[in-house]
Amino acid sequence: MAGDALVIFTPSGKRGRFATGTPVLTAARQLGVDLDSVCGGRGICSKCQVSPGVGAFPKHGVTVAPDALSDWNAVEQRYKDKRGMIDGRRLGCQAKIMGDVVIDVPPESQLHRQVVRKAASARAVAMDPATRLFYVEVAEPDMHEPSGDLERLAAALAEQWQIAGIEAGPAVLRKLQTVLRKGNWAVTAAVYRDHHGGAPRLLDVFPGLYEGALAGLAIDLGSTTIAAHLCDLRTGEVLASGGIMNPQIRFGEDLMSRVSYAMMNPGGDVEMTSAVREALDALAKSVAGEAGIDPAAIMETVVVCNPVMHHLFLGIDPVELGQAPFALATSSSLSLPARDLGLKALNAEARLYTLPCIAGHVGADAAAVALSEAPQDKDDLVLIVDVGTNAEILLGNKTRVLACSSPTGPAFEGAQISSGQRAAPGAIERIEIDPMTKEPRFRVIGSDLWSDDPGFAEATAQTGVTGICGSGIIEAVAEMRMAGIVDAAGLIGSPEQTGTARCEAEGRTHSYLIHDGSAQNGPRITVTQGDIRAIQLAKSALYAGARLLMDEMGVDHVDHVTLAGAFGAHISAKHAMVLGMIPDCPLENVTSAGNAAGTGARIALCNIAARAAIEAQVKRIHKVETAIEPRFQEHFVNASALPHAVDTFPHLSQIVTLPQVVHNTGGGGEGGRRRRR
Amino acid sequence: MAGDALVIFTPSGKRGRFATGTPVLTAARQLGVDLDSVCGGRGICSKCQVSPGVGAFPKHGVTVAPDALSDWNAVEQRYKDKRGMIDGRRLGCQAKIMGDVVIDVPPESQLHRQVVRKAASARAVAMDPATRLFYVEVAEPDMHEPSGDLERLAAALAEQWQIAGIEAGPAVLRKLQTVLRKGNWAVTAAVYRDHHGGAPRLLDVFPGLYEGALAGLAIDLGSTTIAAHLCDLRTGEVLASGGIMNPQIRFGEDLMSRVSYAMMNPGGDVEMTSAVREALDALAKSVAGEAGIDPAAIMETVVVCNPVMHHLFLGIDPVELGQAPFALATSSSLSLPARDLGLKALNAEARLYTLPCIAGHVGADAAAVALSEAPQDKDDLVLIVDVGTNAEILLGNKTRVLACSSPTGPAFEGAQISSGQRAAPGAIERIEIDPMTKEPRFRVIGSDLWSDDPGFAEATAQTGVTGICGSGIIEAVAEMRMAGIVDAAGLIGSPEQTGTARCEAEGRTHSYLIHDGSAQNGPRITVTQGDIRAIQLAKSALYAGARLLMDEMGVDHVDHVTLAGAFGAHISAKHAMVLGMIPDCPLENVTSAGNAAGTGARIALCNIAARAAIEAQVKRIHKVETAIEPRFQEHFVNASALPHAVDTFPHLSQIVTLPQVVHNTGGGGEGGRRRRR
Repeated sequence: MAGDALVIFTPSGKRGRFATGTPVLTAARQLGVDLDSVCGGRGICSKCQVSPGVGAFPKHGVTVAPDALSDWNAVEQRYKDKRGMIDGRRLGCQAKIMGDVVIDVPPESQLHRQVVRKAASARAVAMDPATRLFYVEVAEPDMHEPSGDLERLAAALAEQWQIAGIEAGPAVLRKLQTVLRKGNWAVTAAVYRDHHGGAPRLLDVFPGLYEGALAGLAIDLGSTTIAAHLCDLRTGEVLASGGIMNPQIRFGEDLMSRVSYAMMNPGGDVEMTSAVREALDALAKSVAGEAGIDPAAIMETVVVCNPVMHHLFLGIDPVELGQAPFALATSSSLSLPARDLGLKALNAEARLYTLPCIAGHVGADAAAVALSEAPQDKDDLVLIVDVGTNAEILLGNKTRVLACSSPTGPAFEGAQISSGQRAAPGAIERIEIDPMTKEPRFRVIGSDLWSDDPGFAEATAQTGVTGICGSGIIEAVAEMRMAGIVDAAGLIGSPEQTGTARCEAEGRTHSYLIHDGSAQNGPRITVTQGDIRAIQLAKSALYAGARLLMDEMGVDHVDHVTLAGAFGAHISAKHAMVLGMIPDCPLENVTSAGNAAGTGARIALCNIAARAAIEAQVKRIHKVETAIEPRFQEHFVNASALPHAVDTFPHLSQIVTLPQVVHNTGGGGEGGRRRRR
Repeated sequence: MAGDALVIFTPSGKRGRFATGTPVLTAARQLGVDLDSVCGGRGICSKCQVSPGVGAFPKHGVTVAPDALSDWNAVEQRYKDKRGMIDGRRLGCQAKIMGDVVIDVPPESQLHRQVVRKAASARAVAMDPATRLFYVEVAEPDMHEPSGDLERLAAALAEQWQIAGIEAGPAVLRKLQTVLRKGNWAVTAAVYRDHHGGAPRLLDVFPGLYEGALAGLAIDLGSTTIAAHLCDLRTGEVLASGGIMNPQIRFGEDLMSRVSYAMMNPGGDVEMTSAVREALDALAKSVAGEAGIDPAAIMETVVVCNPVMHHLFLGIDPVELGQAPFALATSSSLSLPARDLGLKALNAEARLYTLPCIAGHVGADAAAVALSEAPQDKDDLVLIVDVGTNAEILLGNKTRVLACSSPTGPAFEGAQISSGQRAAPGAIERIEIDPMTKEPRFRVIGSDLWSDDPGFAEATAQTGVTGICGSGIIEAVAEMRMAGIVDAAGLIGSPEQTGTARCEAEGRTHSYLIHDGSAQNGPRITVTQGDIRAIQLAKSALYAGARLLMDEMGVDHVDHVTLAGAFGAHISAKHAMVLGMIPDCPLENVTSAGNAAGTGARIALCNIAARAAIEAQVKRIHKVETAIEPRFQEHFVNASALPHAVDTFPHLSQIVTLPQVVHNTGGGGEGGRRRRR
């Protein structure tokens, strides 16, 4: 047809014919091409930059003439002079189609661009946040047709952006009139979409074209630590990250001791609620400060946490979670003003979203892991273990996903371990024990040197060697098992049985000396029989939970194991399997997902569709309650052995041969005592 | 059909055939008969009581046998024993239809019963509040199918009451688990419906069947006084009323002085916002206390006010309302949590609704008057005047409704009057002046005696005679005009011109002595020439506004005049017309609507459909901006004369003949001075 031109967009490949004179942005919108624009085609936001091609494109069957687009115009020139623009780029709203043309949309001009995370698993997050900016030109007030400033802004949003029925709270109403006049009736509106069909909300308004910060905060609210990632809501980029200890620790180290605190102390839940809310507010301020932005630029926050933290943060007494049937006050996702939960540093109208809880013991953090790791999309059967004070366990593939929680206790985090400590400089994080000499060497956090490397003492003089962190104790016990210092029952041998003086008698049991720092006024670091028992209890609970899900699924092996949690990143697959923490599978299929719960929170923060998706997915996840499954006890007892009393570990045995030692002499010592009872 | 019975409900006349054994409540629901039930037919709430008839009902063509309903059953007996029941009554959920029957639904069993107000106009308010109670039985938690307590309550509301998708805030989540267990999984839910299609909200939850208070607060937030009516949200009954002075008075007596205060004092608007919010919160506590209920039983509040108060209450700087084009920050109705506006005494989840504003000078109070007086439903043309510091004026009938505001100033309220005072004991509220002797007599608030009655001195010894209130000054000036003391131009005559020594020279003008209390150490109460001028200014503004609307409507008379406002109730129609405050019309057609704005607030509180109706109506009201209409000045000047320089008052002249005096001698005195200029 005369006057029509063929337009092909890349990388989408979308194509169509348009009348000459059609702006590129208009053509892109009509074809559904993902081309950003904040100012709605007014040539001021520059978000719609495109790269037109010239010459022959045999693949597309088109040759592009040099004059396929209208001449560079004054608006583009002004923009380039003021802000600069890559050569060859055009503003999509200004350049008009004059002939057949191929137009590339660079990644930074794509609204729903994919952001690759720097963390362990390099999966991309598609940007489609609930809160976005919209530039609008608003009609001035007219005494002959009186209407409110908000109503004229709402009309502009409806007309210019098809956003109908916007609502605003007092904080925005308070500034609206000043901003509209300061912007000479042109403003940028921060609009929040509700994915449950509620009215869109005007969170904030800025004079003219706003190019300042627009941020969201993804919070992984753990029992022990709270981690927050401040994300740019336009690009998905992490602007700053921060972490603090959960101040509730002073009320109880683990979840159940906090539930007890609430039960024993009237008002105790309120104290804990205030403590965590204040901590989150302070953390928000701190990460915003680190990123150099005003905390009021934080428009949204997504919080993931276990059910007890969920209730304590929301201000709900967690007492029901401490006893069967472990009823949650609410299991649904929540979307509410962040200020209602005491987060006052954020924007006054900032929204807070919590992911749904899966069950009374399987919280929004597990839902976030499911969102991040997406077992429901996998062909292979994947076991996902989020190791913390409680372990959340997911097992599934495309056909079905199961979930449970298992009370591992804090041993994996270095707590309740005689020389245990949190992961901090000076903590032993890696250990190797020579199977012949039974001599250990180790590395501490803060130095890359092994303890038998030259210069180790100097390198660690500052920090010292202060204890063993969570991943260190796992390696230590696994190495002790591989070196025959510990037998399958978990018993540490005597110096005679093991042939090393590092096995020292301690009452009726023995402990293994890893490092004697007493000459440097440091601690003597040992692994005691009690430490082995604590690790056995923890790993038995973890393994029993996984087995319970495998029973429910009707399988006796899994294809993949994903270790989630900040801690999971530091566990070696081999050592975990030697301990029997996880079921046998090909070692190369044991991977770490890093802080998958935090990643899930970031996905939900950056993508509104992900919220709806995980809400639907959680309803489909089948929950298994370990506390009422009789087989859990049986699995727990069988899992006590290292690696296991019954289950075989064929993949493990291909690379590791565990010594067939037995340290129980039937006489003295712990093993003997136990047998007599 | 065999087994079927004819059922006729009165007073609705709805009828239908039902299988024998059908409960009366079920039949009522299927026919759409208005029969209340909170417990959903479980025989515990007793709201569905009915009175079955027996014998012949020729009008309905049916004869009712004594066994037309099933026998009195154990549930009914238990209820009657425990709570008592009027003889002949049955519980609609228990009594089953066994034969043809006529069933009367008494008013107290009607959910949408009409409540007749005690105030001046005896119009009925249909009950259909946004917040209602629903009794539900909730499934207990099940570890095998884990879900939250809220989710099971939501499922129960959906199944038992067809209320889908309920949402709850932290305050309700906090108490939900305890209440469900205390009620043994049966609870009463207070559910708020949003008339804009938002999700229903769970405002509160009570164990078992809740029969305590459920209240709403209708607030008329005036510039000078704040009035509140506490209403039972089930019956519409006013439980208590209260009023306080608006504490913002300390920042400025009238609206424009408060706008100035905000302009001149940075943070001044914030001070005024805090003051009014604290006052409202205290008022809510006080009226709840008077009614003997917990303020937490207040689930909703409706606030009506003028635009400046609207902005100051919402926390918006009113500066834009002080200058053309008088742009409102928002003109729409608002529905938001009352706590967000500092009303902390109410239920934590209480909702606040403000009616829409009509224009920058015509606020939610005028919308409330329109809701109460409904000019849009009238055949006759009605002029509605809400007299206060500003007068809001509505003119209309079924074809069209117009609105404007006119700056009358505070003279009608007794302010800026030399002997003026607020309506309080001791204030002169009624005056008569003998046209022959020019001697006055008067009554003061607090006594029914006239000042020339025996015993007046004793009756008023306590209060004294302290000044003239708003209605008193109107009567005084009108009586002075009727007695020839004041001429049509508003000039007070000299003793020689009027023939009374009560006209005293005061500089170049005269004043009229009403009461000399100096012998009793009381004040000398006079009406000065300045007082007359102040009243002339106020009434000219009022009349000019009305005339502007009449011009726009294309009429030169109105059929009815309604005086609204607490003050309107005390103005005599004759005196108002002698002053020319209102256009001429048959005197019997001048009526008082009492506090119509407060009534409108109560209607919106008690009836959710009224909210949608007034929102739609406000959009149809045509606004006239007095400040930019050139004819306003002309009307204002012509209206200065008493009653008017141009317009005739045929109805008034049938009953009152005003003396044709002229006190301007062309020489000294105010009249003379003015003429020379």
